[in-house]
Amino acid sequence: MSAKTDTEVFIGGRVFTLSGYESEEYLQKVASYINNKMSEYSKLESYTRQTSDIRNILLLLNVADDYFKAKDKIASLEEDLHTKEKELYDLKHELISAQMKLEFSDKQLKEVDVKSNNHGQNLKDNKKAVR
Amino acid sequence: MSAKTDTEVFIGGRVFTLSGYESEEYLQKVASYINNKMSEYSKLESYTRQTSDIRNILLLLNVADDYFKAKDKIASLEEDLHTKEKELYDLKHELISAQMKLEFSDKQLKEVDVKSNNHGQNLKDNKKAVR
Repeated sequence: MSAKTDTEVFIGGRVFTLSGYESEEYLQKVASYINNKMSEYSKLESYTRQTSDIRNILLLLNVADDYFKAKDKIASLEEDLHTKEKELYDLKHELISAQMKLEFSDKQLKEVDVKSNNHGQNLKDNKKAVR
Repeated sequence: MSAKTDTEVFIGGRVFTLSGYESEEYLQKVASYINNKMSEYSKLESYTRQTSDIRNILLLLNVADDYFKAKDKIASLEEDLHTKEKELYDLKHELISAQMKLEFSDKQLKEVDVKSNNHGQNLKDNKKAVR
């Protein structure tokens, strides 16, 4: 685990010192995301005409909405992954079965080849005997 | 798309009327998540001793952190999915190749079988001829 550090971030025109284990790069990314939200919202009259408390709740709701949308995406990806894992499992079985059949066929082919050589030999012997 | 509706949610001890296309169930879930965050934080002295503005930013940062963690999870799941898709692609090719080899071996076996029957017949004819 990395060491606990203090990082200064600039959010909504104010400087905050965040203390934690997250990297400065990560915290700046999160701060920048919040600043973008604030900047987007400040263009909407329906937001700016609200009291500061309500504006804060609206921002919170919007960020929480991003979080829940991301959670839905996680659930959907996990389902896709589960489906792919099932497909992989089935395909592996199908492949093993095909490989076993192939091995069996090849073995039979080799046996037939050996018999056919012996047969050819017998035939030659027969011919010699008839002369 | 569902119709735009007004939904009353209770956040931080206040009632808010949210207007939008999200279901009431979804908005209540988001509101409940924010209330839980507020309730968790209100137990921390490091939070309660701050001004309302700072408390709001701290909450925003925390929810945004959940969002970024979820985004990381999405990136990791998408990578896993990509790997599985590549594995599936490779396995499908391997299976097709094994099935083609099997088909070829089976065809050879059948040909050998036919030849061997003809051979048997020739041998019988030979034997008849020697008598």
